[in-house]
Amino acid sequence: MRNIRLCIAYKGTNYAGWQRQPNALGIETVITEAIRNLTGEQVVIYGSGRTDAGVHALGQCANFHTESSIPDERFAIALNTKLPRDIRVLKSELVEPDFHSRYSAKGKRYLYQIDLSPVESPFYSEFSWHVNWKLDIVQMQKAAANFVGTHDFRAFMASGSHVKDTVRTVRSIDFVEKDSRLQIYFEGNGFLYNMVRIMTGTLVDVGIGKIEPGYIRAIIDSLDRSQAGITAPAQGLFLEKVFY
Amino acid sequence: MRNIRLCIAYKGTNYAGWQRQPNALGIETVITEAIRNLTGEQVVIYGSGRTDAGVHALGQCANFHTESSIPDERFAIALNTKLPRDIRVLKSELVEPDFHSRYSAKGKRYLYQIDLSPVESPFYSEFSWHVNWKLDIVQMQKAAANFVGTHDFRAFMASGSHVKDTVRTVRSIDFVEKDSRLQIYFEGNGFLYNMVRIMTGTLVDVGIGKIEPGYIRAIIDSLDRSQAGITAPAQGLFLEKVFY
Repeated sequence: MRNIRLCIAYKGTNYAGWQRQPNALGIETVITEAIRNLTGEQVVIYGSGRTDAGVHALGQCANFHTESSIPDERFAIALNTKLPRDIRVLKSELVEPDFHSRYSAKGKRYLYQIDLSPVESPFYSEFSWHVNWKLDIVQMQKAAANFVGTHDFRAFMASGSHVKDTVRTVRSIDFVEKDSRLQIYFEGNGFLYNMVRIMTGTLVDVGIGKIEPGYIRAIIDSLDRSQAGITAPAQGLFLEKVFY
Repeated sequence: MRNIRLCIAYKGTNYAGWQRQPNALGIETVITEAIRNLTGEQVVIYGSGRTDAGVHALGQCANFHTESSIPDERFAIALNTKLPRDIRVLKSELVEPDFHSRYSAKGKRYLYQIDLSPVESPFYSEFSWHVNWKLDIVQMQKAAANFVGTHDFRAFMASGSHVKDTVRTVRSIDFVEKDSRLQIYFEGNGFLYNMVRIMTGTLVDVGIGKIEPGYIRAIIDSLDRSQAGITAPAQGLFLEKVFY
């Protein structure tokens, strides 16, 4: 029984997210089905974490156990022949028997993409949040520095979530301006539910002058979701990389 | 009666092209309908040229005549409220009464985008041609230099086309490598039907070593479509700019 890890890119637009929803297709389900088509096995795949409907991945990781004779690195090519074009396996490799995509993860990096064009680009509307206001990116960078470090991020967790330990370490937040897009990279040991999207919504509030950069610390300390900004829309978010 | 010019960006994926086809929606029709919704007028819009199904535009131009009282530059914002998100008016402005988007054009620039990733990107599959072979870009650039200048490009015209004057001037062909994409910009006084896509297909044949760069001149001189390479797929092509 081999344990195979897949590195997967997907466009989340047409899916219910990583996990299936009632009446809507999950990416996990589509990949499980592709493995069944390929090997005849009904496997369970373990993702590094869920992504919401409309959220994309440049490098989601998932592993599964197989009795198939397909060589480790051939799973990528073989599965791509069974998958729709908006889900691509970039790499497949053998991992230790006890490797688990979620529990073995040491950290993750997300990308949030904002379209700063005066008129929303028809090419980025599925891949970014079009922000109509002029953003002060220097102020946003100052604000972002306050997120870096180990904090209780309860104020930046979706209110419906019931996770108990809400302490996380944000390792870095980097800003890249590319053509008329602003890309914000968030790297950390883990993120709470909607945490990247709420941090982004709050950073945009700083960018438009609604919140002072120094006030971020007070929002963190409040542990109160209502003190932070809006949840930035799903379509701007990409799971970029999982670290092991 | 004012003559208004629109600068338009669109994602061509879900349309029959600029012009309507039997049973399929043309971008022209969608914009004409948006103008009717906005002004109550049934206008004729004149595009700088047609784009095929699946071809995109970063800067298509079109003009129409109107009796409406909407200020020149407000048409852009007003029309965008009536248009789907994959068609955006970037700018609207008053032009001379005798301006015609097609006949007044002095030239055009197209972009053809090739995805060089080992595995096709799910984010670029609607916006590029995924080429699986390793391309020698230096050889492609040498070949492209042979296209520049004034030539009879009959060999690079779709065989169904019945244009008589097939002499065109290609002003420049520029290559840009961006992440794992190859972008080729073609600028000229005008292009024959499918000419950019056939030049691209031929350049890819050079890139894989099937055609020598110096042989391009012989293909041009042959005036024979069957001597040139394949027509590169529509989804990699963008009408980038029209010059007046």
